[in-house]
Amino acid sequence: MSNTLGRLYRVTCFGESHGRCVGVVVDGCPAGHRLDTGHLQAELDRRRPGQSRVSTQRTEEDRVEILSGIFNGVTTGAPVCMLVWNRDTDSTRYEELRWTPRPGHADYAAEKRYGGHQDYRGGGRFSGRLTAAYVMAGALAKQVLAATHGIEVLGYTCQIGSHVAPDVTIEQVRGNTDSNPVRCPDPDAARTMEKAIQEARDQGDSLGGAVKCVALNVPPGVGQPIFDTLEGDLAKALFSVPAVKAVEFGAGKALAHMRGSESNDPYTVAGGRVETASNNMGGVLGGVSIGAPVEFTVTFKPTPSISKPQQTIDLKTLEETTITVEGRHDPCIVPRAVPVVESVAATVILDHMIQRGYVPQVIGEIR
Amino acid sequence: MSNTLGRLYRVTCFGESHGRCVGVVVDGCPAGHRLDTGHLQAELDRRRPGQSRVSTQRTEEDRVEILSGIFNGVTTGAPVCMLVWNRDTDSTRYEELRWTPRPGHADYAAEKRYGGHQDYRGGGRFSGRLTAAYVMAGALAKQVLAATHGIEVLGYTCQIGSHVAPDVTIEQVRGNTDSNPVRCPDPDAARTMEKAIQEARDQGDSLGGAVKCVALNVPPGVGQPIFDTLEGDLAKALFSVPAVKAVEFGAGKALAHMRGSESNDPYTVAGGRVETASNNMGGVLGGVSIGAPVEFTVTFKPTPSISKPQQTIDLKTLEETTITVEGRHDPCIVPRAVPVVESVAATVILDHMIQRGYVPQVIGEIR
Amino acid sequence: MSNTLGRLYRVTCFGESHGRCVGVVVDGCPAGHRLDTGHLQAELDRRRPGQSRVSTQRTEEDRVEILSGIFNGVTTGAPVCMLVWNRDTDSTRYEELRWTPRPGHADYAAEKRYGGHQDYRGGGRFSGRLTAAYVMAGALAKQVLAATHGIEVLGYTCQIGSHVAPDVTIEQVRGNTDSNPVRCPDPDAARTMEKAIQEARDQGDSLGGAVKCVALNVPPGVGQPIFDTLEGDLAKALFSVPAVKAVEFGAGKALAHMRGSESNDPYTVAGGRVETASNNMGGVLGGVSIGAPVEFTVTFKPTPSISKPQQTIDLKTLEETTITVEGRHDPCIVPRAVPVVESVAATVILDHMIQRGYVPQVIGEIR
Amino acid sequence: MSNTLGRLYRVTCFGESHGRCVGVVVDGCPAGHRLDTGHLQAELDRRRPGQSRVSTQRTEEDRVEILSGIFNGVTTGAPVCMLVWNRDTDSTRYEELRWTPRPGHADYAAEKRYGGHQDYRGGGRFSGRLTAAYVMAGALAKQVLAATHGIEVLGYTCQIGSHVAPDVTIEQVRGNTDSNPVRCPDPDAARTMEKAIQEARDQGDSLGGAVKCVALNVPPGVGQPIFDTLEGDLAKALFSVPAVKAVEFGAGKALAHMRGSESNDPYTVAGGRVETASNNMGGVLGGVSIGAPVEFTVTFKPTPSISKPQQTIDLKTLEETTITVEGRHDPCIVPRAVPVVESVAATVILDHMIQRGYVPQVIGEIR
Repeated sequence: MSNTLGRLYRVTCFGESHGRCVGVVVDGCPAGHRLDTGHLQAELDRRRPGQSRVSTQRTEEDRVEILSGIFNGVTTGAPVCMLVWNRDTDSTRYEELRWTPRPGHADYAAEKRYGGHQDYRGGGRFSGRLTAAYVMAGALAKQVLAATHGIEVLGYTCQIGSHVAPDVTIEQVRGNTDSNPVRCPDPDAARTMEKAIQEARDQGDSLGGAVKCVALNVPPGVGQPIFDTLEGDLAKALFSVPAVKAVEFGAGKALAHMRGSESNDPYTVAGGRVETASNNMGGVLGGVSIGAPVEFTVTFKPTPSISKPQQTIDLKTLEETTITVEGRHDPCIVPRAVPVVESVAATVILDHMIQRGYVPQVIGEIR
Repeated sequence: MSNTLGRLYRVTCFGESHGRCVGVVVDGCPAGHRLDTGHLQAELDRRRPGQSRVSTQRTEEDRVEILSGIFNGVTTGAPVCMLVWNRDTDSTRYEELRWTPRPGHADYAAEKRYGGHQDYRGGGRFSGRLTAAYVMAGALAKQVLAATHGIEVLGYTCQIGSHVAPDVTIEQVRGNTDSNPVRCPDPDAARTMEKAIQEARDQGDSLGGAVKCVALNVPPGVGQPIFDTLEGDLAKALFSVPAVKAVEFGAGKALAHMRGSESNDPYTVAGGRVETASNNMGGVLGGVSIGAPVEFTVTFKPTPSISKPQQTIDLKTLEETTITVEGRHDPCIVPRAVPVVESVAATVILDHMIQRGYVPQVIGEIR
Repeated sequence: MSNTLGRLYRVTCFGESHGRCVGVVVDGCPAGHRLDTGHLQAELDRRRPGQSRVSTQRTEEDRVEILSGIFNGVTTGAPVCMLVWNRDTDSTRYEELRWTPRPGHADYAAEKRYGGHQDYRGGGRFSGRLTAAYVMAGALAKQVLAATHGIEVLGYTCQIGSHVAPDVTIEQVRGNTDSNPVRCPDPDAARTMEKAIQEARDQGDSLGGAVKCVALNVPPGVGQPIFDTLEGDLAKALFSVPAVKAVEFGAGKALAHMRGSESNDPYTVAGGRVETASNNMGGVLGGVSIGAPVEFTVTFKPTPSISKPQQTIDLKTLEETTITVEGRHDPCIVPRAVPVVESVAATVILDHMIQRGYVPQVIGEIR
Repeated sequence: MSNTLGRLYRVTCFGESHGRCVGVVVDGCPAGHRLDTGHLQAELDRRRPGQSRVSTQRTEEDRVEILSGIFNGVTTGAPVCMLVWNRDTDSTRYEELRWTPRPGHADYAAEKRYGGHQDYRGGGRFSGRLTAAYVMAGALAKQVLAATHGIEVLGYTCQIGSHVAPDVTIEQVRGNTDSNPVRCPDPDAARTMEKAIQEARDQGDSLGGAVKCVALNVPPGVGQPIFDTLEGDLAKALFSVPAVKAVEFGAGKALAHMRGSESNDPYTVAGGRVETASNNMGGVLGGVSIGAPVEFTVTFKPTPSISKPQQTIDLKTLEETTITVEGRHDPCIVPRAVPVVESVAATVILDHMIQRGYVPQVIGEIR
């Protein structure tokens, strides 16, 4: 019931997994940005189902349609409505599952939240398919960030199951992430991860993992303490991505093990610019960027849809029963989540750049 | 610049570490709640500096003053303004530190965000002292949650440095948390943790750690997907607590290592009520509560104030220099953060309970 | 850049006069309402262009399409996206007018707000056509208000040019409003008004007027002082209707001429219910409903599009010039504005009913 | 329950008529503004009770106290908390009136909104005394508007009872408004109005009237259509001023009587600047400023407190009864409302100037 995110760059989503479409209205995009629809489509393609052996076999073309807000190829300042139509839906099995909530899914939560009126087909409003809307809004945000400040938002798979990738350079991230199906920039790790996913799938099971994300060139001074912090707003948005269960900035959880003398990032000067010698803080202090890369890690739980039998209850009789969840599911959502995480981050960062006055209401306008 | 949190139970904070006071305006508290000022003061006392050998020696009485919103001992529905005055401030050393940002602190971030106009004394608007405001707002929220739904919000220290407490029962949490200075319900772990803090302090260093928090009796169906999820709003609020760098729900980061067949919490029935056999999800699915305890873990970085020399820069000359941060600082903030984490959680949960219509605008009013 | 209205019943609009469509996303509609699409279409038909001799000859079928949020004919609690496609657009003349802002229109305002990037065809984002979105959102709100509380929102034309209709009864409003092209419940006044409009059109000129609106059965205690008052939120929403320049509650401007002994509405009791003997206050005191009919009057300026020559400037040369605005315009917008005013009012009232907890998140759910 | 106004310049009010204080937290004031406390106090003095024979005899010193947000005399970007303490309260008579709602007052509305828990002394949260908070927030806004853009917000009494002042020049407004007790810039009209107020008071009755307000030097392009229009946000804020019942922009209600050929303001060029030859639109088109003076008129109902006997009911017995409202009341609120209207307008305009990026987050900061 709260499908709008952001204060000045505001994203309102609509649509369901097995409804007619998934769409988004972006309100507050600065006027005067020349939309790159090729980039927008390419971002959707990175998220699209059916890309590889390690993702779901549901096939959706997911061609973006733009209904408003663009005139002569340029943003007008009016709301930009974008959508993709649903085509390859198969709702037959969901009638069977209607009264037996799938463990790990939102079925029971939705039942209690919406009093039984929710669209339960394919997860309805709780489906991962909704992230297509995030990607459309985020692709637009990425374009504006890149065009106005050279900001780059780069995500990649850093963990699948128990396989944690070694540290990588930004060059590896830029060069390798999209060149393998798991989106891990380390080729060896990528191969191991891919194998692990296939193995889990063959066993009717699923895997979790983690995505690391870095935003480069965010200027210092961005964030609105004490409540609308850069970390807080990023975290809030990231938890709206299905299956996310943990968000860490910089060294994150590992900071609990450090001493202050290790964790504090010393200030230094490089080329006349203030920098930090390390980045344990993930580029944010007091909820405000300091000019270092904004870095965070997002943990995804294993896909809840597994074909192994699971214990649940019948909501009508309140008796225990067993279900198996067949269908075309990702055995691990992490690879396809990479562009989603980037999109959510770009959306939040652009909102904060506008709030701070760093991106103007009209592109190119100087006061 | 965004010092208001919440949609229907809205908390607006003001004040600085070395200013006149720290205060909060709570807007949207239901009318008709009989305020327990004893409880309110007790909560502030749990957060107060100078409680023990492991906390700062700044001494503040922190007596709550209520300026509005209560009439005949009862909330009227009007905004409740509460504050504590600052008394034991010593700003002398901050002039020296004016141009040498302390690593790990928000000094440099504030400089860039507020263009040098920020109150830099004692961390100013970025000080941990501001959490007194969170506790006042949260204590009121706790009271309303307990009175209307028997909801209990219980936090405790689960990690200090590398010392991780063993699993504890709710009874241990209730009984033991406040009986030792580190607020760890396991007595053995508590002793080890206390010793570790003292050791770090003696070495002029500091420690991080983690707080676990459980909210009991939150009914199912609370949360406003897809963006104002219970997880997202909790996380956003928690990241406004100074030094928080990671937020996890349920098994959190450990979920990345599990398979779906392990992580999915099976549904079961107990006493005619739907329950889950485990709680890896932390009581939230699809951003909505399912009736299981809402559980999360918050990681705190080590206190950035350490007396060891640290490398920084002089903002005026842009040359590197060294500082030591003397003063009365907590060598580990975690024990005093426990009531803060609980307060933030209670604030968010009450806001969501009101949004869902589970707590009425007027206590006792039935429609 | 702020195309969302409301706090819990939230309406986000998109689309342009000569773009692909005009649409709306309604977020926060309670789950469990059975949508009456016939009523929804009928409301759109009341607003549709080309209804009569006194309205524009642009013809748009304006068939509502529902893209999301309805499942098995019932609201799910997910956002409801509704739109009408644009078909009968003719943008040829707008290229000519590009640099000569039409007096009384938003052309120049848009130029300055959006830096020249606005869609200037047919008024773009400032067109009266956007009110189709208000009507879709408002029709849904009307249905929920009627179904849950028997609330009825009735508007009618009370003035066209200098012709002010005599006082009418609620029965006349219900029975006569839609039976004549000007939507005035007094048949004699209606005829005079219709003639006045035709006369103005024949002279290449236009007329203004006023709509009165009454909401019946709004329970007492609705409104969120001190800022989100019922009056303030209604007024804000009404000023988003193109051409509205004044909003009055109850006796409105006439109150300036009264004494307190005349203007105060005495309380009385009728059938065990508290009532007022008069309604000079328009059913609202202190920003909160008192159970009397909520009454307000909205003044519309004359349609700015007139075919008489008008003085303007050339934005490129900054020299004065003359334009005539040809095309298919309403010589008086008031008759078609009646359903728009009702819709806006219903939208705001439902939002406040939900905020007050009088309409639950799930229809029929009792706590 | 919604005591916060604004999006980026946000005002949160607290306090009651007979409570301890009336205060305000201003969040989002740009950093780097040197506060003029003399001006702030002078603005409060203009609103203060007991100024003259035509206002209430309650005497309040109303010395502003600043609790936060100012450091070295300059705004820091942190929330500015300001308050005035209540001293001259006399709550004795309110116990008597507890169950007999005063006609024209919010007593009954409050009873229904807050379930009987409201502070009923002196109107509690609905008292005109709360406007002291508006004036503090507005004085700060006025200063920032003047310092950054030379914007001037000028209000004056244009009507008392049936006495309507003739048109006045800006010079008369600047020079004469505060030189007479009714704040009407036309000296003859002022004398007549003053006499009328005294006459009404002598008869135990009260008068209404109207305030006109002009904001000069608002640049074109300010306003956030389609919902957060300059008109809509001004109107919403103005309706939060007690006793306001109508808001009109430009010619307002008179526009209903005009033809388009009269009402449209022709564009012209003067000194290389686009202007309009008239200002029937009040400087706003499509919800956006066009560079002409922003002009509006606010109608106030007669003060509801009159000493003549009035009919009301006993809420406990639901029987009709009679009351007289004794005490120290303004026989006409309009003169003291002038600074309140200006303050509210300045608050809204500054918020919109910040939203548009015309006032930066840090004063003097250029991007």
